[in-house]
Amino acid sequence: LLIPALALFCSASSAEPTVVAAKKQDHAEYKDWLALSVSHRLDKKLVRIILGNEKAIAAARSGTTTPWPDGTILAKVGWKERVSPDWSEAVIPGEFASAEAMVKDSKKYPETGGWGFGHWEADKLVMNDKEKSAVCFACHLPMKAKDYVFTTPVLQ
Amino acid sequence: LLIPALALFCSASSAEPTVVAAKKQDHAEYKDWLALSVSHRLDKKLVRIILGNEKAIAAARSGTTTPWPDGTILAKVGWKERVSPDWSEAVIPGEFASAEAMVKDSKKYPETGGWGFGHWEADKLVMNDKEKSAVCFACHLPMKAKDYVFTTPVLQ
Repeated sequence: LLIPALALFCSASSAEPTVVAAKKQDHAEYKDWLALSVSHRLDKKLVRIILGNEKAIAAARSGTTTPWPDGTILAKVGWKERVSPDWSEAVIPGEFASAEAMVKDSKKYPETGGWGFGHWEADKLVMNDKEKSAVCFACHLPMKAKDYVFTTPVLQ
Repeated sequence: LLIPALALFCSASSAEPTVVAAKKQDHAEYKDWLALSVSHRLDKKLVRIILGNEKAIAAARSGTTTPWPDGTILAKVGWKERVSPDWSEAVIPGEFASAEAMVKDSKKYPETGGWGFGHWEADKLVMNDKEKSAVCFACHLPMKAKDYVFTTPVLQ
């Protein structure tokens, strides 16, 4: 009986978490994606991180982003800007604002440059309907030469 | 002879890169790490992404960051702030400034709160000598209650 008891003790005392275990948390997929860049929107008072799924990172690394390949998903995660309580000259993320998505599927979204627009509600990616996507697309239209994407990857 | 020739053709025409292949690039390790947060230093005119190695991400996800565990490496990657040429109210990364590291090893760096300070030169992490680390540590000293780290993870 000693060995199982010891095994249980060792298991229970292993306080060190692993990333594998941590990834099992029920969280939005973009939290497991690498970052491409950041932006601070002075007009909207938001700080943002722009992340990409594996397809996006591979495209950024190989410089094949005009156009981004089908299967690319870009996530734009924003927080209200906040003056750091620890350094008044630093603006850091405050309250979470939103996590939005651009999904590249040239067959599925031909009317909006091959991009579908959506957002995460907790851990679920919810795609906008065509009408709402058209509104998103209108703002991205001036970026046609960069496949409708404002972000230039800096961390690839 | 037809089959090998075809195989060669298929291989050569496979233009789609994979992340595995892309990761073989000779680049700084932090480029394969997940982001923890961002900051915009108004005084230094820098925008920054703060990333963590696997140990750091696991610690952030499990909320065990006071103290951060030995083996943690945090990367603070900075660029000069730049007004976006595509949206004048957005500040984005301009010229690369630096990539700095905090490495937690409580046995190795007891004089500086268990943290070693360093920076990446291209793909190599170069640790500072004790004298230079002491200067870094002096700025982090007010953050003692948060294990000398300014960053609060927001993407874990």
